[in-house]
Amino acid sequence: MASFEHPYVPKDLELHDYVPCFLSQSEIVAPYLVVSVVVVALVWILSGRASKILLIDRLLMCWWAFTGLTHIILEGYFAFSPDFYKEKTPFFLAEVWKEYSKGDSRYAGRDSAIVTVEAVTAVIEGPACLLAIYAIASKKAYSHTLQLAICLGQLYGCLIYFITAFLEGDNFSASPFYYWTYYIGANGWWVLIPSLIAIRSWKKINAAFQGRTKKTKAN
Amino acid sequence: MASFEHPYVPKDLELHDYVPCFLSQSEIVAPYLVVSVVVVALVWILSGRASKILLIDRLLMCWWAFTGLTHIILEGYFAFSPDFYKEKTPFFLAEVWKEYSKGDSRYAGRDSAIVTVEAVTAVIEGPACLLAIYAIASKKAYSHTLQLAICLGQLYGCLIYFITAFLEGDNFSASPFYYWTYYIGANGWWVLIPSLIAIRSWKKINAAFQGRTKKTKAN
Repeated sequence: MASFEHPYVPKDLELHDYVPCFLSQSEIVAPYLVVSVVVVALVWILSGRASKILLIDRLLMCWWAFTGLTHIILEGYFAFSPDFYKEKTPFFLAEVWKEYSKGDSRYAGRDSAIVTVEAVTAVIEGPACLLAIYAIASKKAYSHTLQLAICLGQLYGCLIYFITAFLEGDNFSASPFYYWTYYIGANGWWVLIPSLIAIRSWKKINAAFQGRTKKTKAN
Repeated sequence: MASFEHPYVPKDLELHDYVPCFLSQSEIVAPYLVVSVVVVALVWILSGRASKILLIDRLLMCWWAFTGLTHIILEGYFAFSPDFYKEKTPFFLAEVWKEYSKGDSRYAGRDSAIVTVEAVTAVIEGPACLLAIYAIASKKAYSHTLQLAICLGQLYGCLIYFITAFLEGDNFSASPFYYWTYYIGANGWWVLIPSLIAIRSWKKINAAFQGRTKKTKAN
């Protein structure tokens, strides 16, 4: 069978046995958004039944559920499926990465830094996100430490992701549209939100130590 | 001028205008160890003059000084000196990386993941290590948070470092000697020690929260 021509940039990227997307952009993005909204709504409703969970903590639980499942399912599939671009059926997870590679062809091209960051994210950070939901719900002492640790991991991953692309010429998007929506737009949330949570947890941890110091002094 | 043949693996790595090491292995390693011992001794003596700094904290201050200066000077030089292997004088920092590349030729080959990890380590983690010395000495509330954050960064960097090499065939050492001494041996310390410090700081933070919870309950 002759190989299809791929839509990715750079054009000389070799992808033997590439099979084009079966689904349109909206057929890929819409189910992801719908499922995400359902997950967030479920966590929101369930966390509302528990007593004494602050509004901000309920929002955080929704975020950790959304990002944790994205890490484990979407990024986990990518990390361990080197041949996703050869997929001959409209399998949703393969379609996601065939489509996303228009924003960053290093995914289809199996760049080792990308695969490493995604594997670490899927295997370590994903389950840690789900643990964070439990830690917040049960007010564990390690709740903020865990949230800070995950956020720093997500931010480190984003640094590796963007800087390696910059060093290699920043020419992996099929068009400015895909560059700004997929490469910058989709990833931007994983810079913004972890930054905000990291700052919050950092302050909460410091407050815990300051409270302890005051207590010691008071004694 | 004809280019010298480089001693690195894989042999087909192209390094135009490569200039061999001027110094022997011992002439490179010995000054690094001597300067490190001097730095550690200085921090040890100075921290001993301050009152009420625990033995373990004095040891940690020594480590943060050693690793911080290594990050800033050695790794900082590498990150921003793409042409170090062309250096025509026995400039010490260039010699370090010409020698180290025998353990991992991705340094001479300017692998983008390596450059990114080293740049992040030099620019963010290096100064943060020096801040940790100050934080420990002045018993800042953020001392453990900062130490945990740096350790997680160092561990994430090591994960990227080792996994990318594995994915690319793990064939970047000039010999098993260099593989085990430079690639595994030298880097192993930055897996072991940050792991130990991260566990300690994690426990200290949890203890601070547990102390606060008990205080709240007691009230």
